[in-house]
This record gives sequence, C-alpha cells and structure tokens, in this order.
Amino acid sequence: MSPVTIYDTTLRDGTQGTGISFSTLDKIRVAEKLDDFGVHYIEGGWPGSNPKDAAFFEEASKRSWKKAKITAFGMTRRGKMKVEDDPQVKMLLDAKTPAVTVVGKTWALHVTEVFQVTLEENLAMISDTVAYLKKHGREVLYDAEHFFDSYKENPEYSLKTIKAAQDAGADLIVLCETNGGALPEFVEETTRQVIAHLGRPVGIHTHNDGGVGVANALAAVRAGACQVQGTINGYGERVGNCNLTTIMPNLQIKMGIDLGLDLTHLRDLAHFVDELANVPHDIRAPYVGVAAFTHKGGLHVHAVQKLARTYEHVDPTLVGNQRVITISDMSGQSNVLIKAEGMGFKFAKGDARVQTILAEVKRLESEGYEFEAAEASFEMLIRKQLGQYQPLFNLIEYHSTHRFHGGEHGFETCEATIKIEAGGNRVYTVDEGDGPVNALDNALRKALLPLFPALKDMRLADYKVRIIDGGTGTAAKTRVLITSTDGNATWSTVGVSFNIIDASWKALVDGIEYFLLKRS
Amino acid sequence: MSPVTIYDTTLRDGTQGTGISFSTLDKIRVAEKLDDFGVHYIEGGWPGSNPKDAAFFEEASKRSWKKAKITAFGMTRRGKMKVEDDPQVKMLLDAKTPAVTVVGKTWALHVTEVFQVTLEENLAMISDTVAYLKKHGREVLYDAEHFFDSYKENPEYSLKTIKAAQDAGADLIVLCETNGGALPEFVEETTRQVIAHLGRPVGIHTHNDGGVGVANALAAVRAGACQVQGTINGYGERVGNCNLTTIMPNLQIKMGIDLGLDLTHLRDLAHFVDELANVPHDIRAPYVGVAAFTHKGGLHVHAVQKLARTYEHVDPTLVGNQRVITISDMSGQSNVLIKAEGMGFKFAKGDARVQTILAEVKRLESEGYEFEAAEASFEMLIRKQLGQYQPLFNLIEYHSTHRFHGGEHGFETCEATIKIEAGGNRVYTVDEGDGPVNALDNALRKALLPLFPALKDMRLADYKVRIIDGGTGTAAKTRVLITSTDGNATWSTVGVSFNIIDASWKALVDGIEYFLLKRS
Repeated sequence: MSPVTIYDTTLRDGTQGTGISFSTLDKIRVAEKLDDFGVHYIEGGWPGSNPKDAAFFEEASKRSWKKAKITAFGMTRRGKMKVEDDPQVKMLLDAKTPAVTVVGKTWALHVTEVFQVTLEENLAMISDTVAYLKKHGREVLYDAEHFFDSYKENPEYSLKTIKAAQDAGADLIVLCETNGGALPEFVEETTRQVIAHLGRPVGIHTHNDGGVGVANALAAVRAGACQVQGTINGYGERVGNCNLTTIMPNLQIKMGIDLGLDLTHLRDLAHFVDELANVPHDIRAPYVGVAAFTHKGGLHVHAVQKLARTYEHVDPTLVGNQRVITISDMSGQSNVLIKAEGMGFKFAKGDARVQTILAEVKRLESEGYEFEAAEASFEMLIRKQLGQYQPLFNLIEYHSTHRFHGGEHGFETCEATIKIEAGGNRVYTVDEGDGPVNALDNALRKALLPLFPALKDMRLADYKVRIIDGGTGTAAKTRVLITSTDGNATWSTVGVSFNIIDASWKALVDGIEYFLLKRS
Repeated sequence: MSPVTIYDTTLRDGTQGTGISFSTLDKIRVAEKLDDFGVHYIEGGWPGSNPKDAAFFEEASKRSWKKAKITAFGMTRRGKMKVEDDPQVKMLLDAKTPAVTVVGKTWALHVTEVFQVTLEENLAMISDTVAYLKKHGREVLYDAEHFFDSYKENPEYSLKTIKAAQDAGADLIVLCETNGGALPEFVEETTRQVIAHLGRPVGIHTHNDGGVGVANALAAVRAGACQVQGTINGYGERVGNCNLTTIMPNLQIKMGIDLGLDLTHLRDLAHFVDELANVPHDIRAPYVGVAAFTHKGGLHVHAVQKLARTYEHVDPTLVGNQRVITISDMSGQSNVLIKAEGMGFKFAKGDARVQTILAEVKRLESEGYEFEAAEASFEMLIRKQLGQYQPLFNLIEYHSTHRFHGGEHGFETCEATIKIEAGGNRVYTVDEGDGPVNALDNALRKALLPLFPALKDMRLADYKVRIIDGGTGTAAKTRVLITSTDGNATWSTVGVSFNIIDASWKALVDGIEYFLLKRS
C-alpha cells in the first residue's frame, strides 16, 4: 500500500453539522490537539465566509506547528471575473497558510443549472485559481466537488475539470463524494479509473449519507488513494463526513498502513473534540465510544476473560480505550468479581464473601436494580456486604407535597420536609423545588450541609428515570439513575421503588454517602 | 440480484446494547410495528435466557402476524448431553414459533479453549440440534458465530461446521461477523467462497465495530447473500449491529433489490423504536435522522432549492423524512399533513388551518414535546386547533402528598385530592396510590367514573418518563409518555413539564379525553 496522509476538516466541514460550532479559541485548541496527535493537514476554515474563520488564520499564522500543515479552504474564482480581482481568493492568500484547498465544480448539471456559467468558463475558473495560488507559493489541493455523481453522468467532462486543475499545477486532486450516497464498489472502481487517467494518486473526501462514509474512503484507498479527508467523530453536514476516528485505526491497525500516528491518544482526542463542541459522546462510536468494548452478556463475559479476541476486534488499549464489564441481569460471578477488583477490592479464590455479594446483586436485580451505569451504588453495596459501611444519618421522616391550583391563573407549589438524626442531633428542614424530587433534594442538602460542609462541592449532573415494567401503568416500578459531580469526578447511583420519590431518595442518599466516603 | 429477506433482531441482539431494554409489552409493540412495516423475520428473544423473553413468546403465539415469521433464538445443545435433555433447547420448542435460529461455534479456538469440548463434539452438537428442531417441524436458521475470524484461521473446520448444519437440514446458514472487525473486501470474498462451497446462498449477520457494519452486509449481498440480519437504529452489543434502518433503503432504493417494503414508513419506525427503548434519536442517523436532509450552509441551500439532487442522495420523502432548510425542529408542513390525513382529517391544498396546526406543533416541540409515539395527543392537538374539542371537565385544584416514616417499621403514605367542575357539578375526591402519579390517577378516575361510566373499560398499559435535559439535575424538564388500553386498542399520549406530576397529569387527561371522544 502507498503512504496515506490524513486531512482533517473538523474545523470547516465539521462545523457545517447541525449543532456544531466552535469559538475561535476552541478552533485553536482543536487544531493544537490535532497537531499533537499527528494528522498531516488541518483545514482551519473558510476565510472568505466568516470573520471567525479569518480570526483563526490570523491566530494560527503566529503559532508554530509540529507536523500539521494548516490549510485554508475556498472556491474557484467567480465566473466572468479575473482571479486577482476576486475578494474571496484574496482572503485565501491573506490566510497565510502553507497549503490551500480550492473546491471547484465537476458536475455539468451543477455548473450550468445552478451556477449558470458555461462549461468552458468553469474550466477556466479552475485553471486560473489553481495557477494563481501556485504562483503565490502555496501547496494547492483541488477538491473536485460532486465527482462521483458527475462521473456517472458525464465521465468526459468530469475528467476535464480535474485535468484542468492538474495542468495548472495542483499538488493533489481530491475526489469528493459530496452527496454521500455512493456505494463502495462504485467509489473503488471510479477512483481506480481516475488514478489511471491522471497517472498519479488522488485524495478522497466522503460523506456518510448512505451509512458507508468510512467504507467508501477505505474502498478508494484500496484503489490507490493517498489522502483521506474527514472529521473527528464524523461531524459534518447532514449525517456527517467520513469519521476519521474510525478510519484511522482501520487504516493503521487493520490494513497495516503506517500513518505515523500514536493511536493510544485516539479516544482522548475524540472526547476532547466532543467536549469543545459541547455535544454528547456517542457511546456507540466505533473504537472510542464508552460502549465500544463493553461486555454485557454473561456468556460473552466468560469468553472474553478466557480469550479476549473472541469478542474484541482489536485490543482496546491500542486506541486508548478500555474493556468494560457491565453488571446486568445476565450477571454471573465472573462479572461481579472483575468489577469489584477493578474498584480495588481483593478476594481470594473461593472467598465466601463473593457469593454473599453476588446473592445481594441478584436480589436487587430481581427488584429492578441495574448496576451497569451505577458503579457508585455497586461499590456501596459491596461495602455494606463487607461491613465497611456506617450510615451518615438516620431518616426519621420525609414529606413531600405538590399542589396545583387550576383555572386561568393556575400556579403550583412543591415543597418537602425532612427529619433526620445525625451525630446525636435531630435535624428538621423544609425547602421547595421545581418538582417533588428537586424539593426533597434541596431539603436534604439543607439538613446535611452544616454537618458535612464538603457537600457544597457536590452537585447533581444528571437525572434519569425509567419505568421498569410499564405494564402496570402508573403503579409500575421506577428506576432512578443519578449522576453526581464535584467538578472533577462523576459517579452514578441508582434507586428502585414503586414510588419515584422513594427511588430518587435512595439514589440521592447513595450518591451523597459515596462522595463523603471518598472525601474522608 | 437474487431476492433478499430482512431479519430483524432488535428484540434479541439489540437488547444486548448498553442502555437498551424493553418490557414484554414494548416487545409486542415493536414486533407489531415491524410486522406492519413488512420485515420477513422478527427474532423475539432467547426464551432460555430470561422469563421476559419467554413471556413475549407466550403472548406472540396468541396473535396473528401479517407477514413476518416470529423466530426464537437459542444455542446448540450443551456438550455431552442428549439434545432432548437440554432444557434450553426444550424452551426453544416451547416458544411455539414457526422458525428457530440456533447459534453454534465455528472457531476451533473458541470451541476448545473457551467451551472446552472437542471439535468433533461441536459438530455433533450442531448436527443434533438442527436435526431435532427440524424433526419438530421448525424452519431452522443456523447462525455460524465468529465465521469470518474462524475462516481466516482455519477454513476447513469452519466449513465443516456449516456443512454439519446444512446436512442436518438447516433451511439457511447465516454467516456471523461476530467481532465486527472485518473489512468489506474480506467479507465479500469469503461469502463468495462459502456460497460456492455450499452450493446455495447464505444469510449475513454483521456488527459495526469497525464502522463498516452496513458496508460488510452490502458486500455479502453483492457476493450472493440472500438474507440480511440487523437491528433498527443499529442497536446491539458494543457499538451495535448492522443498522437495518440504513441498509434497507440502500438495498431497495440504491441497489434495486425489491424487499417488498414501503420505505415511506421508515423514519416513523426508527423513531417509534427509539421512543419505546427510551433512547434519544441520533439526529445524524443516515436516511431517518432529523439532520439527514438538513441544509445549513447558505450555498448548499441555494443549490438544493434550485436542484435538489445536487445535495441530496435520495428524495427524503422516499424514506418518510423531509428536507429541512433552516436549523430548526423537525416538523414541516408535509410531515404534519401526512400524519393528520392518516388520522382521517382532510385538508385542501393551501388550507390555512394547516399552518395554524404546524405553528402549534412547533411551539410544543420547542417546549420538549415529541409526537412520534403519542399519536393520540397529536390528534387531540389537531382537534383543539380545528375547534373540534370540548373539555370534559375543568380542573380547579389537585394536591398530591407523599409521606415516608422512617425507622425500623417505616411506611409510606401517598395520596392525592382532586377538585373538578364537570356537567355543572363540583366533584371533590381523594385517593391513595403507589406513588404520587398513581394516587392522582386513582383520584381522577374516582371523580370521573360516575359521569363517564365507560371509563371502567380503560386502563393504563404503560408509563414512561424521559428527562429532557439531564444537565440540570433534579430540576430538569420531564416528558411523560402514557399508553392506555381498553383491552383492544392502545393509544399513547404525552405531557411535558418541569414537574413530573404535572407532566403526568397532562398525559393522563389527554388519554382519558381521547378515549371518551372515540367512544362517543
């Protein structure tokens, strides 16, 4: 296989995705992270399209980059205008990047119907722009928009457009599968034909509209493509671009193509970019998702322990991820042991306490508990079974009340009272809230804060409710999952009851006790 | 291309996914939806693994199915045991399904190292189990676990295992890419060789660990596979199974393979299953995601308006989706129209009332409502906008209270009072319940039953709660989805509020009013 470079367009094509936006500072941070990681090109934005992108290039030009070439993205010159008079092309030069990527039209239909220039003028637009940028000393990448749709309809004209770019001095022609709807076989065959025609390799830029964005890029690499363009986590317009987070390990680990990347930082990179984009991690993301190496079924868990590669396609540590054994209703002794040992508990082989813990897990699971996502409750359970637990307080009574006054000027009142015994004292508090659980949470904090001042650092980060067996309507059992945080760590706890308030109470108390135990 | 059948395993392999679980009723509803949609096989679960799956088959056997064959999943018999003595195999028969899928071991390493039986005994386990199930009149599908990893290491033994299944009478051999790490080229080539060896087509079952789950199944189909196994929305262990929601349109629309499916219900199906699994929709899902046909870039929008196919790989209406031009919520006029007409409302082209309804839908969606799985609330909304609605009663006040007395003999009291005005009377009732919502439900029924005796036939069948924005802890917004039934029909309603009790109240009242409206 010939060498392959990675071209990241998270900061340009990625931001076309619904809900994705970065500040200028975010962009700099992402670019630095990508440079540390070792990608070859970082497309920073489209300086002609918005001031934020222009500000990024201004900032980027002052910094030094380890390995990556920063590239600016733009279009071929407008029709019927001299290239040196086009303000958008001028801004491309003003970006002062070592490389520039220019997109041009390939599809005759697009040229004449949408852009309303002649086919000949389009070729001149491509040729003039590439030549002009080369004259100014730039490395020029030429993105052939819609290449595959166009090639299907009119291969002759499609080839003319990229030949125009090549003859004008473009350093690389990139075939863009702009609509994202082509299938791998067609991408492979077309790429092979184009490489033969140009007499040199091309780059590939794909989208995921048919769910095969990664497979299409792999197909092009098989046909000889020497550059893959994509985005971290597959951000991008519509359903997104080729997901670099997936294709990089496919290329380097599976196909043996050395990209010069240390993939043990891959998971970090993926989560870092999600954090800055402020989008939730996809737990099911290949390689880097939280669930990517999660084993739930008891039978599988048994097999994974015996021989990891029976249910793991790669060693999770190669991509900075890790194996997770979850506790589920299929749990057996092996799951419980692995999980407990991961928390630092040590058990000798045949230790009778493991049986006791397992019995308690099974009893709670049959009541509707799930410890899969509630590791803090699981640890509290083990401590209780091992006698390593002292309650912080005794609950005497709580009372929550919710009143709705109807009519035109309807309003609600929601309050809770709590009576507890702690440290020899009886504490009695009342507070209100947005709902019964929020009121209870507020009243409990009010009661405990004077006794445990560290609680001021802890807050709830997430609250999930699940009805376990909906079949009995509003009398069904409720499972509440609460995630708490102290700003650094997060931990999750679970409570189950026929009553949502009671279930929430259990999870709340577990979360507080866990926090104070770890703090002490 | 030869005909291809679709085999759905959302209810079995899908539930191995982190965070995915269905109640028995959920499973029935999903199966009915899949049957309406037209898939060929619905794998309902593993009767030998848990009582919930056994309950599903019990219920499924009482119903009639339009087109789909319900299948039960299980393993080959245990080693060193007669097949008729294996309780797990017995439960497969007890499931009374027309078809049964049996998974067996292919990989020598797996057989000897993990399962510790001899390679010969493994062949006997496969052969005995298939023959026994055939003798009992079942259509038998044989899942060859780990086929691709195994074939790479030891093609000879791998082929022996599937030959054993074929010789014992299996109706279809399914090649399973269990680890999800193979790449399309290898899947295609291997499938081609196996089909040549067996002299008949096989099925394909893939996972997405390398991000090419769909591409791998497509590759197998190109090689002659006649069945694709997968899950709705790609649920499944680790990163998930082959996403049927993506591959079905790829096969039918792009490859021209007639699956006999009306794909205009595809988006509905995908969102329905997400709602029942209580997981958020992936906005970037190919074909069915909210963003799948969303155009954000100004340039693209211009082009899309001029000529849709310049930036759309398929017409979105073919899969029940729609083009979204601005970054806003998902509803467009056509969506609302299609849905309303499906309920029997008729609108002339350009009817101004459609705009009014759409505006109200958009307003409620921005508050957190979703009508995908709450068709009864949607109908009530339309009736309200058309002036075809009279409230049954006016709410004056409700009050719910929950008291927990702690200590050794702790007990709870949960009660609600309701004050309403109906038919000129003021009615004031109190009742208790298992939780605040159940108490409220009971008190409301007590108030309404004398006025509307038909209510005795109606009961709640399911109750789901979703926290919309978990980031704000127990003060987050709550969406409640209630399913009601009169023993024959079921209908679902939705309510949203910062307060779970208030959200439940809205959904409860909608459900009761809808029922009485249909009865009158």
